[in-house]
Amino acid sequence: MESEILSRLIAAFRSLPAVGQKSATRYAYKIIDMTEGEVQNLIDAIVDAKRTLHFCRECGNYTELLVCERCLSADKSTICVVRDPKDISAFERIGDYNGLYHALHGTLDFQKGINAEHLRIRELISRLNGVREVIVATNPDIGGELTATYLAQIIKPLGIKVTRLAHGIPMGGEIEYADELTLKRALSDRKEI
Amino acid sequence: MESEILSRLIAAFRSLPAVGQKSATRYAYKIIDMTEGEVQNLIDAIVDAKRTLHFCRECGNYTELLVCERCLSADKSTICVVRDPKDISAFERIGDYNGLYHALHGTLDFQKGINAEHLRIRELISRLNGVREVIVATNPDIGGELTATYLAQIIKPLGIKVTRLAHGIPMGGEIEYADELTLKRALSDRKEI
Repeated sequence: MESEILSRLIAAFRSLPAVGQKSATRYAYKIIDMTEGEVQNLIDAIVDAKRTLHFCRECGNYTELLVCERCLSADKSTICVVRDPKDISAFERIGDYNGLYHALHGTLDFQKGINAEHLRIRELISRLNGVREVIVATNPDIGGELTATYLAQIIKPLGIKVTRLAHGIPMGGEIEYADELTLKRALSDRKEI
Repeated sequence: MESEILSRLIAAFRSLPAVGQKSATRYAYKIIDMTEGEVQNLIDAIVDAKRTLHFCRECGNYTELLVCERCLSADKSTICVVRDPKDISAFERIGDYNGLYHALHGTLDFQKGINAEHLRIRELISRLNGVREVIVATNPDIGGELTATYLAQIIKPLGIKVTRLAHGIPMGGEIEYADELTLKRALSDRKEI
């Protein structure tokens, strides 16, 4: 019974990640309530991003330049290796890291036939000149762990330190509610205080 | 350090209701990953909604028609009165109601100078011919309660039943965690079983 045009807008918003019917409906009503200028601003931002962003040829993050600003200005002694550009955004938000990034655009998955040559691993190796530490910040899942082990095997022989993010109980998290795998990891990785 | 164009898209998404930095970032990356066709579909849906939707002259909900389909096809013996069109969407989702709707486009707020003539109350009165029940489904806040009381005062003398949605412990909610006001209401509105 809802307006067909409104339903179509709600359906379009549902194509965004983790947006259900309720959020999509709220977004649609907000669009109708916005001024023409505000709607135009949103559309321009979408069109510009889609038209101009591509991968930095060095790190694989999205940029409108040939080589992104980060690659030019970063401390070049450390590279933080991630699966996807959006993982770089997560690090940028905490603001504690000023080294280089490198997006692999995936992780190893032999069952799906995703081997080293399908990822940006050759590009990573070619960037290691002058690097003293490679932080492998892939997710703690099968593909992420496998990729970390693989990278350590080929990078450590070059005399470069390879590290992995710490795993454990999340800050503010309660031990009672931690899943078993996390608790096991928190125990085995315990630190002296 | 993030791409300026990406930052602008993230900022634009943050203008949607309850969208924080993390969600906006995920939406922005999704846009870049979408096909040209998918992005065009989203933009078309936004533009069409903004261009063609206006208020139904009967119920005040959004429609692309002069009088919305609901007003034409509904059971006309009941009117459900809500504050905003988006409240109608909430009822549509549950699908248990097949009467008329009426959006007031606000609730009374004498401090802010919002009186009966600023709301679509005259339009509501003009629709009461043949109506046997008016369900006042404004929010259980000061303005919503005030508006419900006001409407009851002017509609009951016309011999029409005026009802209010039940309040109480939400389904699946625990009494232990209910706020005092809700618990008081649940107690005073208790029903015989």
